[in-house]
Amino acid sequence: MSTETLDFESVPATWTRRHLLGLEELSAEEITVILDRAVLFKQTMAERRRKIPLLVDKTCVNLFFENSTRTRTSFALAARRLGADTVDFSASTSSLSKGETFIDTAKNIEAMGVDVVIVRHRTPGAPQLLAQNLDCSVINAGDGPHEHPTQGLLDIMTIRERRGSVEGLTVAMVGDIAHSRTARSNIWGLKKLGAHVIVCGPSTLVSPRWAEIGVEYSYSLDEILPRVDVLNLLRIQFERQHSSPFPSVREYAHLYAMNRDRMARTKDDILILAPGPINRGVEITPAVADGANSAILEQVTNGVAVRMAVLSLVAGERE
Amino acid sequence: MSTETLDFESVPATWTRRHLLGLEELSAEEITVILDRAVLFKQTMAERRRKIPLLVDKTCVNLFFENSTRTRTSFALAARRLGADTVDFSASTSSLSKGETFIDTAKNIEAMGVDVVIVRHRTPGAPQLLAQNLDCSVINAGDGPHEHPTQGLLDIMTIRERRGSVEGLTVAMVGDIAHSRTARSNIWGLKKLGAHVIVCGPSTLVSPRWAEIGVEYSYSLDEILPRVDVLNLLRIQFERQHSSPFPSVREYAHLYAMNRDRMARTKDDILILAPGPINRGVEITPAVADGANSAILEQVTNGVAVRMAVLSLVAGERE
Amino acid sequence: MSTETLDFESVPATWTRRHLLGLEELSAEEITVILDRAVLFKQTMAERRRKIPLLVDKTCVNLFFENSTRTRTSFALAARRLGADTVDFSASTSSLSKGETFIDTAKNIEAMGVDVVIVRHRTPGAPQLLAQNLDCSVINAGDGPHEHPTQGLLDIMTIRERRGSVEGLTVAMVGDIAHSRTARSNIWGLKKLGAHVIVCGPSTLVSPRWAEIGVEYSYSLDEILPRVDVLNLLRIQFERQHSSPFPSVREYAHLYAMNRDRMARTKDDILILAPGPINRGVEITPAVADGANSAILEQVTNGVAVRMAVLSLVAGERE
Repeated sequence: MSTETLDFESVPATWTRRHLLGLEELSAEEITVILDRAVLFKQTMAERRRKIPLLVDKTCVNLFFENSTRTRTSFALAARRLGADTVDFSASTSSLSKGETFIDTAKNIEAMGVDVVIVRHRTPGAPQLLAQNLDCSVINAGDGPHEHPTQGLLDIMTIRERRGSVEGLTVAMVGDIAHSRTARSNIWGLKKLGAHVIVCGPSTLVSPRWAEIGVEYSYSLDEILPRVDVLNLLRIQFERQHSSPFPSVREYAHLYAMNRDRMARTKDDILILAPGPINRGVEITPAVADGANSAILEQVTNGVAVRMAVLSLVAGERE
Repeated sequence: MSTETLDFESVPATWTRRHLLGLEELSAEEITVILDRAVLFKQTMAERRRKIPLLVDKTCVNLFFENSTRTRTSFALAARRLGADTVDFSASTSSLSKGETFIDTAKNIEAMGVDVVIVRHRTPGAPQLLAQNLDCSVINAGDGPHEHPTQGLLDIMTIRERRGSVEGLTVAMVGDIAHSRTARSNIWGLKKLGAHVIVCGPSTLVSPRWAEIGVEYSYSLDEILPRVDVLNLLRIQFERQHSSPFPSVREYAHLYAMNRDRMARTKDDILILAPGPINRGVEITPAVADGANSAILEQVTNGVAVRMAVLSLVAGERE
Repeated sequence: MSTETLDFESVPATWTRRHLLGLEELSAEEITVILDRAVLFKQTMAERRRKIPLLVDKTCVNLFFENSTRTRTSFALAARRLGADTVDFSASTSSLSKGETFIDTAKNIEAMGVDVVIVRHRTPGAPQLLAQNLDCSVINAGDGPHEHPTQGLLDIMTIRERRGSVEGLTVAMVGDIAHSRTARSNIWGLKKLGAHVIVCGPSTLVSPRWAEIGVEYSYSLDEILPRVDVLNLLRIQFERQHSSPFPSVREYAHLYAMNRDRMARTKDDILILAPGPINRGVEITPAVADGANSAILEQVTNGVAVRMAVLSLVAGERE
């Protein structure tokens, strides 16, 4: 099947949003629209086809108040492959250091003729605030521990790609659930598509309150391991830990790292995901990270495709 | 009127300059050529038209020795909307830290095949020095307290847009006149186009010597307020003040900030400008900044249009 | 001769490499393929022709773990003039600070759909390591004191341009030979093309062991000066010196700087090269740097052409 004959030129009638703020607010149908579109874009990339000129007249700004070369680059490549112009606006060099407010900075950027603001901010809700105050599209690239919807989407896309469907699968998120926007976006998206979700980690990082919304919680990876279809191993974000939520890295690795021993006790076709950058030897050993069950690099490739899909939906021409 | 039929493809015979170093050296006719052209480009942007490919074979370099995400981004977007390539060359990462001279750095950049150098430098005259030593075009993006011609042009464009003409208007620049290149470029441009200019601020920041070139000066905003058509509220550049030119920010705001009270004593149609980033509550209160008389965000939009006009004039193909 | 009729559209059958890691491994024929191609690209740049769209579907990443605005910019301009997309990935802002390994960082970048990784790293062999681990093309932009092949190529291109041929010329590299990747790449390339090479500098920075591979060494610039055709004056890299290899800068300049006095004792047509940034008054005086025998700025222009040639060879379409 060639992408030549596939239609992604115009935004489908089933997509009406101008922003992507989180997966909590999306319907299963909307998530499926994004994922189906991402599959098409991934195919065009695999064919090394010319750029897909859907956003030729558009300008996308990366407005990142937290450092992230990887996510920023992924969005920039996605935007440029759609023909858009991209501009980086980082906090350290911006006018915020001159006393300007967050909203004023964003409004000024918008006034230069910007169509999409991709924002990362340590404060939950910052993208919503922008969406309320700007006329252009806003995409959340991570707001504190709240949501990181394109990360959730690329994880789910990878599961769907490897397994055909998400429905009925048991997916465990392992690690620092308490501080993870990736966990939150995954949980919302996976549940909407019919997966059973388990959050697993030390009791300091996993709350029993997840049960209230139908998410299973567990403090023992070994206990849940035999019945898990997908393991998503969250990074221990050493740079975010102010006090230590576990006695030592060694202790954490002993209880929660995926290694050869634990792999022997999983289903044969278990799928291993990890939102990079990974700490080899902490949450995952090299044998697992580089093994056949791992889809870590596919996640990165899918990230560009998912971001192309989201950008083309929120900023593309409607019929 | 569609821009399709408007002619901005070639540089008009009335424009002969390869550089834009300041407004002091331009004639009223030359300023008008830039502003008329900027109006056309603004129209193309409002129509979300495809890029205007006037500089397709050109490369523009932002050579910024002072931080300014905003001006740098505005120039970059302007250049790319004309089809040019853009490169950033910032002081902190450049070879200057390896002992190279300013001129050698610039000559090296030029030797890579660069057509326009957009330079910001803390030393007045730095752009002139480059213009004398390089073969390519040089645009002054701010040289110490001397000039910031594109800021002056965008301010004047905004006044002309709102009022139809600049001639005969009374325009007051308020604040730190002594250190402001924006004030200087505005003064030269406004006087050439026939405005009456007042500089107003604390006596430590406003010199009586402005009277020698026909500029009125005042230490009291309240005194001049009733007869002013346009107020341009300069930022207090806290990051540039080594010793304090006024007792306190509160004192400054009490005497020179535009607020609801002062708005009640102006002409009804007074136009409020402020070169961002603004310090809300210092030189301007939110009610004024966001009110109907304010054109702060229009200034930003006009900045991109003015820079497209300047770039296409200094670097465009001549017939 | 117009470039219109010249053929650089496809990669010649004589070029089979997907990487450029160093000049040591190249044959004289391969070096000549690159240089001939660079001459064509330089001609297109001189004619201000439209971009040469040989890499339109490609993405090139600058993966620089050492600061170098100049080399990075030269590669970026070369890539974009071939129609490629470019992305910067600098060490200071990358995930390496989050504990990720060098190879994982590179594999993640590649997974975003990257065709060429241009890498600078302080560790000799880092580009080789990437070439072994990635599927995309790798270009060495400097690996510690090992090689900097595009710098060697641009120096040799400049000699060939000024002299018609490199064969039979006596070329002296002067300065910090011990720490210079530029010296190493020049030596390999020059010898393969038939030049006689002398390395010259203080005994702390020039090893007698160079004689083992047929390179002459000398501690006295004045002794070799009368018989030298080309002088390549290496920078004293003050930022790399931990202990001082010579008593003082003044002493170094006294013995090794090219100045008017020394110029009087050279062949009339001696060619002076210097890989920028130059320290005026240290390794070279202004009269020499700016004189008719100097080709310093031509080196910079040739750098872009050489990099276009290399990029188009390693990443271009094969017939």
